Amino acid sequence: MASESGKLWGGRFVGAVDPIMEKFNSSIAYDRHLWEVDVQGSKAYSRGLEKAGLLTKAEMDQILHGLDKVAEEWAQGTFKLSPNDEDIHTANERRLKELIGETAGKLHTGRSRNDQVVTDLRLWMRQNCSKLSSLLWELIRTMVDRAEAERDVLFPGYTHLQRAQPIRWSHWILSHAVALTRDSERLLEVQKRVNVLPLGSGAIAGNPLGVDRELLQAELNFGAITLNSMDATSERDFVAEFLFWASLCMTHLSRMAEDLILYGTKEFSFVQLSDAYSTGSSLMPQKKNPDSLELIRSKAGRVFGRCAGLLMTLKGLPSTYNKDLQEDKEAVFEVSDTMSAVLQVATGVISTLQIHRENMARALSPDMLATDLAYYLVRKGMPFRQAHEASGKAVFMAETKGVALNQLSLKELQTISPLFSADVSHVWDYGHSVEQYAALGGTARASVDWQIGQVRALLRAQQA
Amino acid sequence: MASESGKLWGGRFVGAVDPIMEKFNSSIAYDRHLWEVDVQGSKAYSRGLEKAGLLTKAEMDQILHGLDKVAEEWAQGTFKLSPNDEDIHTANERRLKELIGETAGKLHTGRSRNDQVVTDLRLWMRQNCSKLSSLLWELIRTMVDRAEAERDVLFPGYTHLQRAQPIRWSHWILSHAVALTRDSERLLEVQKRVNVLPLGSGAIAGNPLGVDRELLQAELNFGAITLNSMDATSERDFVAEFLFWASLCMTHLSRMAEDLILYGTKEFSFVQLSDAYSTGSSLMPQKKNPDSLELIRSKAGRVFGRCAGLLMTLKGLPSTYNKDLQEDKEAVFEVSDTMSAVLQVATGVISTLQIHRENMARALSPDMLATDLAYYLVRKGMPFRQAHEASGKAVFMAETKGVALNQLSLKELQTISPLFSADVSHVWDYGHSVEQYAALGGTARASVDWQIGQVRALLRAQQA
Amino acid sequence: MASESGKLWGGRFVGAVDPIMEKFNSSIAYDRHLWEVDVQGSKAYSRGLEKAGLLTKAEMDQILHGLDKVAEEWAQGTFKLSPNDEDIHTANERRLKELIGETAGKLHTGRSRNDQVVTDLRLWMRQNCSKLSSLLWELIRTMVDRAEAERDVLFPGYTHLQRAQPIRWSHWILSHAVALTRDSERLLEVQKRVNVLPLGSGAIAGNPLGVDRELLQAELNFGAITLNSMDATSERDFVAEFLFWASLCMTHLSRMAEDLILYGTKEFSFVQLSDAYSTGSSLMPQKKNPDSLELIRSKAGRVFGRCAGLLMTLKGLPSTYNKDLQEDKEAVFEVSDTMSAVLQVATGVISTLQIHRENMARALSPDMLATDLAYYLVRKGMPFRQAHEASGKAVFMAETKGVALNQLSLKELQTISPLFSADVSHVWDYGHSVEQYAALGGTARASVDWQIGQVRALLRAQQA
Amino acid sequence: MASESGKLWGGRFVGAVDPIMEKFNSSIAYDRHLWEVDVQGSKAYSRGLEKAGLLTKAEMDQILHGLDKVAEEWAQGTFKLSPNDEDIHTANERRLKELIGETAGKLHTGRSRNDQVVTDLRLWMRQNCSKLSSLLWELIRTMVDRAEAERDVLFPGYTHLQRAQPIRWSHWILSHAVALTRDSERLLEVQKRVNVLPLGSGAIAGNPLGVDRELLQAELNFGAITLNSMDATSERDFVAEFLFWASLCMTHLSRMAEDLILYGTKEFSFVQLSDAYSTGSSLMPQKKNPDSLELIRSKAGRVFGRCAGLLMTLKGLPSTYNKDLQEDKEAVFEVSDTMSAVLQVATGVISTLQIHRENMARALSPDMLATDLAYYLVRKGMPFRQAHEASGKAVFMAETKGVALNQLSLKELQTISPLFSADVSHVWDYGHSVEQYAALGGTARASVDWQIGQVRALLRAQQA
Repeated sequence: MASESGKLWGGRFVGAVDPIMEKFNSSIAYDRHLWEVDVQGSKAYSRGLEKAGLLTKAEMDQILHGLDKVAEEWAQGTFKLSPNDEDIHTANERRLKELIGETAGKLHTGRSRNDQVVTDLRLWMRQNCSKLSSLLWELIRTMVDRAEAERDVLFPGYTHLQRAQPIRWSHWILSHAVALTRDSERLLEVQKRVNVLPLGSGAIAGNPLGVDRELLQAELNFGAITLNSMDATSERDFVAEFLFWASLCMTHLSRMAEDLILYGTKEFSFVQLSDAYSTGSSLMPQKKNPDSLELIRSKAGRVFGRCAGLLMTLKGLPSTYNKDLQEDKEAVFEVSDTMSAVLQVATGVISTLQIHRENMARALSPDMLATDLAYYLVRKGMPFRQAHEASGKAVFMAETKGVALNQLSLKELQTISPLFSADVSHVWDYGHSVEQYAALGGTARASVDWQIGQVRALLRAQQA
Repeated sequence: MASESGKLWGGRFVGAVDPIMEKFNSSIAYDRHLWEVDVQGSKAYSRGLEKAGLLTKAEMDQILHGLDKVAEEWAQGTFKLSPNDEDIHTANERRLKELIGETAGKLHTGRSRNDQVVTDLRLWMRQNCSKLSSLLWELIRTMVDRAEAERDVLFPGYTHLQRAQPIRWSHWILSHAVALTRDSERLLEVQKRVNVLPLGSGAIAGNPLGVDRELLQAELNFGAITLNSMDATSERDFVAEFLFWASLCMTHLSRMAEDLILYGTKEFSFVQLSDAYSTGSSLMPQKKNPDSLELIRSKAGRVFGRCAGLLMTLKGLPSTYNKDLQEDKEAVFEVSDTMSAVLQVATGVISTLQIHRENMARALSPDMLATDLAYYLVRKGMPFRQAHEASGKAVFMAETKGVALNQLSLKELQTISPLFSADVSHVWDYGHSVEQYAALGGTARASVDWQIGQVRALLRAQQA
Repeated sequence: MASESGKLWGGRFVGAVDPIMEKFNSSIAYDRHLWEVDVQGSKAYSRGLEKAGLLTKAEMDQILHGLDKVAEEWAQGTFKLSPNDEDIHTANERRLKELIGETAGKLHTGRSRNDQVVTDLRLWMRQNCSKLSSLLWELIRTMVDRAEAERDVLFPGYTHLQRAQPIRWSHWILSHAVALTRDSERLLEVQKRVNVLPLGSGAIAGNPLGVDRELLQAELNFGAITLNSMDATSERDFVAEFLFWASLCMTHLSRMAEDLILYGTKEFSFVQLSDAYSTGSSLMPQKKNPDSLELIRSKAGRVFGRCAGLLMTLKGLPSTYNKDLQEDKEAVFEVSDTMSAVLQVATGVISTLQIHRENMARALSPDMLATDLAYYLVRKGMPFRQAHEASGKAVFMAETKGVALNQLSLKELQTISPLFSADVSHVWDYGHSVEQYAALGGTARASVDWQIGQVRALLRAQQA
Repeated sequence: MASESGKLWGGRFVGAVDPIMEKFNSSIAYDRHLWEVDVQGSKAYSRGLEKAGLLTKAEMDQILHGLDKVAEEWAQGTFKLSPNDEDIHTANERRLKELIGETAGKLHTGRSRNDQVVTDLRLWMRQNCSKLSSLLWELIRTMVDRAEAERDVLFPGYTHLQRAQPIRWSHWILSHAVALTRDSERLLEVQKRVNVLPLGSGAIAGNPLGVDRELLQAELNFGAITLNSMDATSERDFVAEFLFWASLCMTHLSRMAEDLILYGTKEFSFVQLSDAYSTGSSLMPQKKNPDSLELIRSKAGRVFGRCAGLLMTLKGLPSTYNKDLQEDKEAVFEVSDTMSAVLQVATGVISTLQIHRENMARALSPDMLATDLAYYLVRKGMPFRQAHEASGKAVFMAETKGVALNQLSLKELQTISPLFSADVSHVWDYGHSVEQYAALGGTARASVDWQIGQVRALLRAQQA
């Protein structure tokens, strides 16, 4: 009989249980990650019960002490699961009862697993988001340090993967660092919505026993309390937001990884991965593969898949708690682990990457200055559209003659426009070229320094 | 020859163009939606050029006047596209040149379509997000008004679609309204990141001609300027965020729609859709189908599909602008239109929905008070776990005897626990039951009023 | 030094390894599932090497014997992983070397992990797809048996969740069974494409040592061999197809689960889940929740998430093997496990479900015969559009008068159309109604029997 | 009054309609694409009605004639939509009534829009899939022709984007062509499941008027008929399959596009896109961007987004027709258009692409023969693992000395292994290297020819 098995729902069920169904239904295999926050939530709740007069001071102390014991067993790896522990909440309360007896049966008064589990998950995520935030800033800091140190290195900027204009290597680094600062900003917003207390919402209707939710909020240090008990127990916005946050962050990292994989090819030869982040081939002895970067790139898919999966699970669900919501936790745990690894590996990659300055310099070619050639004419008064066309003609002339753009003689250039004169030679200096891009956000040195300053200011604000 | 065709890239290309490729490449069919913001951006940019000394005051005035003319033609529906207008930027500049001559060729100085298009899109989205925000609040306001008016209606609260506990109908309405307030909060955050100026980033390296980006920011009333030109021209976070915002909001609306579809079945009969939001069957004369709600539910898929599509497009893209990014606009336009329609239809549905109070009342049954029966014992000192089990036994006894839970005699109840006494009869009052749930967020009247107050306060804050 | 660590790529790497990178890169935690097929593939390959003259008969025998030993250790749970076993291939070959010495080093001749891993995965999936196919047919068979047994039970058919027309309960069961037969058909097609041998493709260029791939095919019993070595080592179509197969199958099961959840509500009360597939509430003693069905419904999200994730990972990947492909296996393993559980639980649910015939009968109402009323007029010669309108008027008249449709008097009906006469009373018989739908695929008894016959024939064909 | 507006559901509805709801609900803006198949289906159905005795021969002829007229108007662009034409079915029947009078009202007898719309969609898709199949084979044929013509061109094969082994350029082309043959195979399977007749299923219960579905099947040339009317009107497997087919095909094309974008960079310089498939920059005169390839790559996201959206829409939907299913058509139309354009553009790109043979040859480097060096030792009897390590040492030695691998003297090699002798010089011939890979599927000439033969055989089988 089910009531003998000590299941939470006690004396009603008759009939056997399908073992596959049992396993299908059980969440202990993964929600055991919540052991610490589950104890934390229960401790706060027992204080709420005491204040509401549902526990005596002595009973509360007994429960608090017992819960500390439970936590100790988990921390020391001595907690023993029983076959009937279908989830962490059942397991912890079962053990509490073994430790302190019937008083344990008072802990769940007015509480439901519906509000308990979502409180636990929020506590866990709050902590985890802070960790991820630190790892994210560690990566950004590494990038900015590097950008500052290497800001005099020039190399080709690409659009459509075609050589476009000379830029500073630091400008490239910062383009990715700046994207990550937006991820940091978004993570803070997610954390704000994670940090809302649902405890005291019961199964659906709320708490009927006068438990003071503001006390619970203070005990657990939440920023706010949920407004509606039906919503509180069944909304998983904060999970969906977290998964999307991770998906967008991974999109950024996948693009950075793609760039570095390209820059590390023999053909580009701009960068070389440290051995610590490469692996070899089981067949080809000369190979050194950028596995770290490929894994980062690939995880964008996995992480987004979890986001997609959760949203599909939520779509069209009747309101309040449905068991479908049990899908939330594995997604959160897997994505958290992935993000933690990816951010650390990315930091390692960036901090140990070698750059080949000479190859970068060698890859700059005069045709990348065609835009500057047009600007030369603009500065002499030619409307840009005509200047663009004139510069295009110069490019075509050089290609046709088989020479570099800067090899065209002044005479040749003057067949295109009489505005060309001897000072056109200044155009062909890459260092001079980048310094022109001095508007905020551009690749001139001052502008790159400004960017570094802006990101460092965000870092300081974050730490404050 | 291509240069004769007046294409932007002027004098270089030789060779014919595949008409399918032309159409594939062209975006004018949808980016024409940007005509107004494109003119707006160009006007600001011409002011920037004047300040930088690249346009005389007279040239600037000529351009401003010409752009106003272009806008007028669009507004009046007289703008004529030419076959070579592959995008809105080309079209507008082509027309400007026809109107004011060669000076038009100065407008694009130092600008690239890369920074132009993303400026346009941000301007468009800024405006559109405001509209959606208003529509969202119109819906929330309607819900809260209704919740206030009908707060004395009780009906069954469900979890797992099984009758759980009696709740106020307003509590249900508010559970969905509260979810939508989070959507509003998130939309504000998206808007903040939309409202950042990329203009002055050029194609990749920045602006080399001393254009004052802070002047552009002021002219166009942006909240901030982008930090890095490479990132500015190629990041589409704000698009991805908007699409995800819409996806999550649609998830909420899909759940509300699902509830209402169920509540509107013959079997539940709690609500009836207005004829304005129902349609009939081409085959079955008696049918009245909740098409409006089904369409809302279904759009969650479509909207999320756009979000998924964009993220996949972004995954692993090399940095800076690639033509792949052209996928952004159709997604934004389609999702914006969908959200606008969905929010308005949902508002219409809610404001015209009839509720059947008697059916709601009739659906309350004594077994839904089993939890309260347990609390009765808890209040008499029994630990909750035992009380839960005792109440479960009472439910089982009533089922076995084929009577309602409140039909068990006191004697029968006392076979389960001696703590039952005559005052157990108070448990069977639904009005009394809901009033117990007085903790914040619960279904008691005071708590529902508190919720209404909280949401109204958010509304006022939003309007300020 | 790395070469001392025995890593596959031997003598080249210098430099330390980041432990987080090591873990990030390692796949042994999940690809150990492949131990058996990895041994199987290696045994076949050693036969290929022997035929090609790269192993002597004695060496081959030594290797075969050693591999059997390795398999035995895995089977008995005595295989010990070493910290350097980054994947199952490395682990098995490392152990083989310990068992048989240097000859083990000949096994990988001409083979790469690129062709090895994908051969293993195909072998594993081939086996697994067969298992899933059996489970799927077990479910279909259960449904058809039930449909046959209960084919005289009538209940309301719904469209848009509104009562539409009376149908046979078996017609509903078969509607889901028939959907699953398409899943079976698709799975066969996936299996066909899984069952293609990539071994002998090397890392990219093929096999240079005269290994006979047709011998390998025969040894491993593959249906075909891959055509191009670059494609063979890097395409994961068969994985994507499998994940999509599962996603679509889950979509079907999610819809069936949704129906049963609804039919099991108090309001519908058509079915009752066995206790073995329900669970109770930790708070509400009277609750019995359809957790099994909710979990099935929710898994549609998870499974599709894996499909979405893999496709995003594949998008835009340069051709041939990239480490990104390592994402394939966890997706396959997780989805396979999920499908196995879901199919078995669904079979359990269907085979133990109770139906409430009286409630089903009671839910039939005369307005559901409005279409038949229209057909009555059609049979008397009225064009359908007019008949539909006339029947609609009758429905409206009944509603206005507050009576059931079949309570309208003949006189009242005749105010709508003079074609109504006394024989209209035959319309109001539900049994008569369903028997009209005798076209193939309809809900008449003969037609339901035909459906059962069709599905049984598919089952027989499948078993053959 | 609604009945006056001529809406299909005739005489029942009272109350006004929200214009936004009208537009939201209406599908005529896109389902007008179905005009031809809608007429086709209606013609067949009127033949079915005649055989069933529900139409006289004269009435049928009148209807057939009227429908031809309707089709003619559409074909000539003279069909005028009326504001009440909410979908193509309503529009066509409304027009038919105008043309032939009340007899038109008999056409819909026993039919529902539920079976009508899905019949139309299947007819449309059947036709469209054939077109896509031809376009796909046109692309494959182009690739195979090119592979045959250029099969003596060698260039580097890459794994992990690192130079791996010399391969034939044709081997690369074929790797993509072979992937597309699987798409062709899958498309045939999708077509088979598209080609199933649902007409005669009514709204849910089937057809009650003796319409012979096998006659309808024959008239419309379907391969089979649906088995169950509830399933037939509400399953959209064939749509989901088509969208997934397109997604996977696009994944292949995105990978090919990615390769070609890389090969077309200045750094690789292996290929050059025809001007017809490139575009220039509005800012940078020297740029020539691979927009065609980038658009192809990006469409993988869009197409998959549609697939994801539909599956989410289907998830958890109650069985039978719900208005949610209206999402199917726009997805199909958009994806069909996209696939058609992508396949044609890809064919254009491949057929006009220039290759730079000298650059390809120049990119081959001796380190790419390290694997062959290991095989040299294997052929002399060294176990592969040792040979791999020895070759790795040679690579390291060459790197350390700053010479190419083939510049190591025999003496130097012999310090690594005494098995090296003068004949090692044969290893350094790229032509000799590729010819070793003669196993089926490898890069040797004979094997490439075999691949070409295999694909051509599939093409012939397809055409037959």
